[in-house]
Amino acid sequence: MDDNTPRAVTMRDVAQAAGVSVSTVSHVVNNKQGARIGKDAWERVQRAIQELGYRPNAMAKDLVKGRSRFIGLVADAIASTPFAGQIIRGAQDEAWRHGHVLLVANTEGNDAAETEAIAMMLEHKVRGVLYSTWYHRQVELPVGLTETDCVLVNCFAAGGGLPAVVPDEVAGGRQATRMLLAEGHRRIGFINTTTPSPAQDGRLEGYRGALAEAGVPFDPDLVIDAQPDQEGGYEAVGHLLAQDATGVFCHNDRVAMGVYDAVRERGLRVPEDLAVVGFDNQEVIAAHLRPPLSTVALPHYELGQAGVRVLLGLDQPADGGRVVVPCPPVHRSSVSTVAPD
Amino acid sequence: MDDNTPRAVTMRDVAQAAGVSVSTVSHVVNNKQGARIGKDAWERVQRAIQELGYRPNAMAKDLVKGRSRFIGLVADAIASTPFAGQIIRGAQDEAWRHGHVLLVANTEGNDAAETEAIAMMLEHKVRGVLYSTWYHRQVELPVGLTETDCVLVNCFAAGGGLPAVVPDEVAGGRQATRMLLAEGHRRIGFINTTTPSPAQDGRLEGYRGALAEAGVPFDPDLVIDAQPDQEGGYEAVGHLLAQDATGVFCHNDRVAMGVYDAVRERGLRVPEDLAVVGFDNQEVIAAHLRPPLSTVALPHYELGQAGVRVLLGLDQPADGGRVVVPCPPVHRSSVSTVAPD
Repeated sequence: MDDNTPRAVTMRDVAQAAGVSVSTVSHVVNNKQGARIGKDAWERVQRAIQELGYRPNAMAKDLVKGRSRFIGLVADAIASTPFAGQIIRGAQDEAWRHGHVLLVANTEGNDAAETEAIAMMLEHKVRGVLYSTWYHRQVELPVGLTETDCVLVNCFAAGGGLPAVVPDEVAGGRQATRMLLAEGHRRIGFINTTTPSPAQDGRLEGYRGALAEAGVPFDPDLVIDAQPDQEGGYEAVGHLLAQDATGVFCHNDRVAMGVYDAVRERGLRVPEDLAVVGFDNQEVIAAHLRPPLSTVALPHYELGQAGVRVLLGLDQPADGGRVVVPCPPVHRSSVSTVAPD
Repeated sequence: MDDNTPRAVTMRDVAQAAGVSVSTVSHVVNNKQGARIGKDAWERVQRAIQELGYRPNAMAKDLVKGRSRFIGLVADAIASTPFAGQIIRGAQDEAWRHGHVLLVANTEGNDAAETEAIAMMLEHKVRGVLYSTWYHRQVELPVGLTETDCVLVNCFAAGGGLPAVVPDEVAGGRQATRMLLAEGHRRIGFINTTTPSPAQDGRLEGYRGALAEAGVPFDPDLVIDAQPDQEGGYEAVGHLLAQDATGVFCHNDRVAMGVYDAVRERGLRVPEDLAVVGFDNQEVIAAHLRPPLSTVALPHYELGQAGVRVLLGLDQPADGGRVVVPCPPVHRSSVSTVAPD
């Protein structure tokens, strides 16, 4: 397709059309202060730029400044989850707002791809790199990232040292449990994940905190660690009902979807026989279950935004280098038959 | 964070460490043919590059060649669907394979953002732009895209003229219907979408084609247009059962999820009382329904790959400028109780 590409309009073309010198065009394009150019010539150049569709070479301009307008985003799995996508969107919107452009690389946890992506970004003199994971976890930092500014998004490095933007798992777990407490539930099950992670620890801590606040004693028999998907939720329901649970906080929305199936198979109903709260607010599931699922949102968009703000020095992390982003509750109809506000 | 950035290693640093001139370093870095450099000096430069961690400035190199290694991808909604993500992944993998880097912009259908993204890409002298939509549809081409090579991915422009890579909706609809016919079903419902689109027309054509192949007369009472989500599927089931349907092909997996709910509420079972086939293979739903859903995959990864291949001239579209990518069947357990092969 190469041969059909129209020849790019050059500064020389603009100069010719406007009847001025190339250096005059350059001054106008670069908005150079102190250059003495008559109003008339200035307008002729602007008109010629418009008419010819001249585009200044951004690479050349960036090169002169020794640094590009790029921000890199290295993510382990943009594509295979609907989540990480929102991190990209948040980061992109915020980058644009400040005149930067996001270079995205999806590495699918492949070390070679990661190394190559980071090298490419360094070659292009990125302003810095956001390193992001699709679920909140500790990471080993790739070597190349020590050569540039780096902010971790939805993850953190051992020993600290690098700023990290992470979701507030503890407050999220507290919110979820409070939604059930507010409807009068006292026997509240928690289907946690079997995967050791900040989500596993943090949400349990939040669950226990909310119970303590409400003066409800913690009963370990009400907590089950299960595979964090539909099958895990489905399997856990028998045990929780045997423990007289009337409400359940699920580690994520997929687990809640499995809980719905198990409740229905027993001829029972959500929320009348078992009130259910999820986590993630995975739209395609949560909003469309019957009844629609009350849940707590993982703030992926906000994580991406905050990552860029920290990288550009617009936000400062607190002591310890962490920026903690809230997980807001989303009220639907799986906790109470009374319509949410 | 600016002040902590270590000073970049320059070509001059490398020259000093290797005891050679800057132009010798430049020849080595650019692998210049015909430059007479002794084996010894060559090795000293390579060693200095390694030890100092020198990175050649890719922007400068690209600039000399007058064209960058970037390929642009403008997408309407990477983030809000789990689908478009796979287009990015396919495009990225294929771009890398050929030494190019993908610049991604997600515009969420916002015209201003789209214009800005395209202008940014043109400024960076991209090799070309993939213009992609999250669902298969006709698009109005943004003006800026006429200034560079462009390939449409998962969409097409009125009047043709631009190469377009699209999924084979007709063959996909035929595959889905054949899965039901193969199990002996003759009263096969089709819950189509209410949204006019190539998917609406193509999948219906495929459904009718498969019935004709099998000698089953087309019955318009078995086709319902419904909202293409869980609620639409849920509402359609009563009508289809009243028409004595024993199997149903759903416009997408979300519709199938609603069908499951409606079947269960009637005390019936999938597939014994109603066999179900979806479309999309949206993993998070299809693989985890009870029973797991047989469906037809939308080939998003392959669409992204093919887009890059057409842009780089590695694949040639057939007459009409279309590359049509197959939608393969995915056999699970919602058509037959006999385990799939």
